[in-house]
Amino acid sequence: MAVNRKTNNFTEKFRELGLGTRRLSTDRFISKNGQFNVVKRGIGLKGFSFYNWLINMSWARFFAFVTLSYILVNLFFGTIYFLIGVEYLTEYNDNSYNEFTHCFFFSTQTLTTVGFGRISPVGPASSFVAAFESMIGVLGFAFATGIMYGRFSKARSKILFSNRILVSPYKEIKGLKFRIANMRDSQLIDMEARLMYSFLQNEGHEQKRRYISLDLEINFINLFPLPWTIVHPIDEKSPIYQKGVLELGKERAEFLIILKGFDDTFNTYVHQIHEYNTDEIVFDADFDPMFDPAAQGETHVHLNKISDFHKVESKKA
Amino acid sequence: MAVNRKTNNFTEKFRELGLGTRRLSTDRFISKNGQFNVVKRGIGLKGFSFYNWLINMSWARFFAFVTLSYILVNLFFGTIYFLIGVEYLTEYNDNSYNEFTHCFFFSTQTLTTVGFGRISPVGPASSFVAAFESMIGVLGFAFATGIMYGRFSKARSKILFSNRILVSPYKEIKGLKFRIANMRDSQLIDMEARLMYSFLQNEGHEQKRRYISLDLEINFINLFPLPWTIVHPIDEKSPIYQKGVLELGKERAEFLIILKGFDDTFNTYVHQIHEYNTDEIVFDADFDPMFDPAAQGETHVHLNKISDFHKVESKKA
Amino acid sequence: MAVNRKTNNFTEKFRELGLGTRRLSTDRFISKNGQFNVVKRGIGLKGFSFYNWLINMSWARFFAFVTLSYILVNLFFGTIYFLIGVEYLTEYNDNSYNEFTHCFFFSTQTLTTVGFGRISPVGPASSFVAAFESMIGVLGFAFATGIMYGRFSKARSKILFSNRILVSPYKEIKGLKFRIANMRDSQLIDMEARLMYSFLQNEGHEQKRRYISLDLEINFINLFPLPWTIVHPIDEKSPIYQKGVLELGKERAEFLIILKGFDDTFNTYVHQIHEYNTDEIVFDADFDPMFDPAAQGETHVHLNKISDFHKVESKKA
Amino acid sequence: MAVNRKTNNFTEKFRELGLGTRRLSTDRFISKNGQFNVVKRGIGLKGFSFYNWLINMSWARFFAFVTLSYILVNLFFGTIYFLIGVEYLTEYNDNSYNEFTHCFFFSTQTLTTVGFGRISPVGPASSFVAAFESMIGVLGFAFATGIMYGRFSKARSKILFSNRILVSPYKEIKGLKFRIANMRDSQLIDMEARLMYSFLQNEGHEQKRRYISLDLEINFINLFPLPWTIVHPIDEKSPIYQKGVLELGKERAEFLIILKGFDDTFNTYVHQIHEYNTDEIVFDADFDPMFDPAAQGETHVHLNKISDFHKVESKKA
Repeated sequence: MAVNRKTNNFTEKFRELGLGTRRLSTDRFISKNGQFNVVKRGIGLKGFSFYNWLINMSWARFFAFVTLSYILVNLFFGTIYFLIGVEYLTEYNDNSYNEFTHCFFFSTQTLTTVGFGRISPVGPASSFVAAFESMIGVLGFAFATGIMYGRFSKARSKILFSNRILVSPYKEIKGLKFRIANMRDSQLIDMEARLMYSFLQNEGHEQKRRYISLDLEINFINLFPLPWTIVHPIDEKSPIYQKGVLELGKERAEFLIILKGFDDTFNTYVHQIHEYNTDEIVFDADFDPMFDPAAQGETHVHLNKISDFHKVESKKA
Repeated sequence: MAVNRKTNNFTEKFRELGLGTRRLSTDRFISKNGQFNVVKRGIGLKGFSFYNWLINMSWARFFAFVTLSYILVNLFFGTIYFLIGVEYLTEYNDNSYNEFTHCFFFSTQTLTTVGFGRISPVGPASSFVAAFESMIGVLGFAFATGIMYGRFSKARSKILFSNRILVSPYKEIKGLKFRIANMRDSQLIDMEARLMYSFLQNEGHEQKRRYISLDLEINFINLFPLPWTIVHPIDEKSPIYQKGVLELGKERAEFLIILKGFDDTFNTYVHQIHEYNTDEIVFDADFDPMFDPAAQGETHVHLNKISDFHKVESKKA
Repeated sequence: MAVNRKTNNFTEKFRELGLGTRRLSTDRFISKNGQFNVVKRGIGLKGFSFYNWLINMSWARFFAFVTLSYILVNLFFGTIYFLIGVEYLTEYNDNSYNEFTHCFFFSTQTLTTVGFGRISPVGPASSFVAAFESMIGVLGFAFATGIMYGRFSKARSKILFSNRILVSPYKEIKGLKFRIANMRDSQLIDMEARLMYSFLQNEGHEQKRRYISLDLEINFINLFPLPWTIVHPIDEKSPIYQKGVLELGKERAEFLIILKGFDDTFNTYVHQIHEYNTDEIVFDADFDPMFDPAAQGETHVHLNKISDFHKVESKKA
Repeated sequence: MAVNRKTNNFTEKFRELGLGTRRLSTDRFISKNGQFNVVKRGIGLKGFSFYNWLINMSWARFFAFVTLSYILVNLFFGTIYFLIGVEYLTEYNDNSYNEFTHCFFFSTQTLTTVGFGRISPVGPASSFVAAFESMIGVLGFAFATGIMYGRFSKARSKILFSNRILVSPYKEIKGLKFRIANMRDSQLIDMEARLMYSFLQNEGHEQKRRYISLDLEINFINLFPLPWTIVHPIDEKSPIYQKGVLELGKERAEFLIILKGFDDTFNTYVHQIHEYNTDEIVFDADFDPMFDPAAQGETHVHLNKISDFHKVESKKA
């Protein structure tokens, strides 16, 4: 089995995309953040990965999760010290709080290994529990560190897409155009793009969703420091040749983009998928320039203009 | 040497799979968890990797290993402090446990760097050992963290296989079918599948095991959010054309699957191998659908139905 | 979409490089350290990655950042302890410094989890803050460790380029030559090189920047332990055939190199880009040898000679 | 630039290997542990990577390095505390050791953050230094952890090579054979092998080293659980056709192997290079089997027999 498969013929068989034919809904199949709207059922928690869950949650939720776990673990150990007896910890002569609170704070000082020592274990039982708790604390550090690095190293390319896909003049014909840019300062290298046209087709009594690859003017660039306008030339061979907005709407057309590139900061391949549906197509329009013509020396790119377009006079396609 | 090798001709030479010809046994060559039943001998521990061992054990065994190591290291250092003399540690005025226990608990407080300080080293000998032990403790943290992250980052794709491989109607002929699904929420991208047919062949006086690649309807999909039914069309060119269950049983037929894909959470290629033996073939059957037809908007997939099939009327193959 | 795209025809379409056509300036587009001179505007901090920033800064700045953060966090927590009241910390009987300093030092001892215990929290308020601060300390360790490993593992191949690109005798014709070497002891494997010729071209009333791939004598080597002289043969098919220094200067010629290889220490692909502009071309010169002829057994390479060249008599190109 | 380059024609141009033509010595160019015998000079420490150095040293040396650094750092900080004055640390009432030792042990307790607290800083100067030292300690942990994980994750495939390369009967002709096996339990996948024949050739007055790729019976295997015997068929097209031991010795022949595979534990590509020189060729011999014929169920492989061979009767090649 080869690592890679060459796609000499970009108009491949329908099913090669791996998305099946049964979805009829007009809802987005790919959400705005690039996730599939697929629900997997019937396997309980067997498909659940605690690691993935911790890696993919937001930083705010992650911090809340850590804090909550910290409190729960200390309540647990605090209770054990309390059951052993507060007299087996030093210095409970503090009338400003109760016995359990003393045990709880001893637990926090043990778990984090700060170990001030004002409160210390006395006797074998509390010493043993403290020895175990501090080991758990150390493993907890290791665990948190692993998760932290996992969160860092999960490459999250941030590719900006124009929020519309345009049917624009292109050479002597028309072209289907959208624009992407790398928001990050990290370099993306060897970028590949693939554009799929998806639509409902009648097949006997039922409708099936079909996918066809659309040829691109350029489907690969070596370096991606500047915005890239990706163009499908709408020539006679194009499956959307002379199709208007009504026709595309009727067949619930979607345009699916698969991007792939090598992230030079994370030294890994990154993927991003994006979907434009019929509402996001604009006919007879073209993108505004994003470069600052006045800038000298350095090249200035205005990423906030990525979706800016102007209407153009219609030509026959 | 190219990074990849293109396999234009999927019916390659027999030995390219790398599995040799000598195995005659009917035992599974690939166990249910995707490991080879191969025992390597004669190199002692030279092939042993402590890291691999720690990475691949279960979490329960890993936790037991850490706890045991922790106890052993503390027994070791505790003994040293005891030999130096408990009078070189502070606060041995506790009659609830013996001198060695005092030394042991001092060791745990040093190794984890919790260092309460109620028990502290006095004098150069115990201070020196404590200085060394706390350094070991710090390296131990680092070690545990490295292992922890190694365990996390070892991508373990969980691909669900149907537990049967079916001979089903396929277009006008028959097809050999099995079904796979990604149990994880992480995306697998650029999935490749290869199906090998393995059987015993008489060669003069001896039998040799042979491998032939079977052509697949689709051997590559871009995206894998939905289950994938992999089909080998049993046409006239197929090496299993018109072979029945008796014939396959006699030659101890096995079907070997090699899957490869890119895991978008771990940013790495993952591999999985699987084997169906003769007992796992079902003739004249087809898989039940896994999609929930009632679901609106989102696509619902019932992964617990992956092996469900129904008998179908036989056609001539 | 295939992982890789084969570039059978190395003289590809202009725009495939991904660098656009609008830059007219003579300033370097690629700085000496291999970064693009592109400024991205209009997205505020949405493209900013705190992780990337910490990973890519120098060690001196990183250390300064850590120290400053440490001081700020301790000023913050020190202030809280001070507001709670220094009487809720033990041992403020030290007249050599003021109350705030006492709180500040208690904070440092808590955040690093060193926890000497001479200064300890008394009462629920300061104990609670200390419990929280030590948790923050532990997360801070985890954070610092993740960043530290990220800095380590970010493969930074150090490829040395000759500081001139030469037009030298090559076989019966001339060749455009430059020389590279791996400064590191780590092995680079499967090195690929691509050389682009970029120049301004009049197009109606405006000038556009064009890119053409130049054929190389060798564009791929398996192993890279020795310096590699990369040669573009200037034959009749070459776009720079018979062009002189004036002509190249007028069209603001640049030579762009894209290198890619697999780093065997970091187990990852690494990329490097480099630019020679017109000032860096030397006509009728050839590189001096870098090998030490006297060395026996081992092969000695003098990397400091990588840019050394001597003038040679001109031949017709 | 494509990620990979297909080597359609395995007998490529000489220089593609990247090893140059000037080495005449009979010394091994590739040492037994797979490193090149190349010395890079003239760049001082600019090519030195502290990280690589720490990653690649033996565990014994690494441990010694850590211990020594620990002692030096504590001598440094101990001296500072001593200069500030031992009276600014608590508890110097211990007559069993001198004042500097007291300061040294305080430093160790601070750096590791064990912080027993029996010895504590008193006054701003020693408190400030302790605050700084404990921060250094925390960064030191992070550093050690990063290095530790770097050492773990540096995939070190252990491929066992037969210590001889044989000229054996192969089908109707002869073949050049050697044998490899994976010592590790981790799986190597998609293994590629390339065999180069290197020899000295007279070119005018001087000798140059040449490299020719030798065709292999099989140069790629999907799975590598069993030993692999790599065979170059010595037919009429082979550059070593009918060459004897004297002829190969005279031209200082070497056989260079480049192996590449994907390590499924480390999820990364691994490379290994190996060299056989003329002394390691055995004519008219064949390898002994490594499989245990008696084993049932599991396949038993005796890796210690990898170099075992027996003489066979010569045939005309």
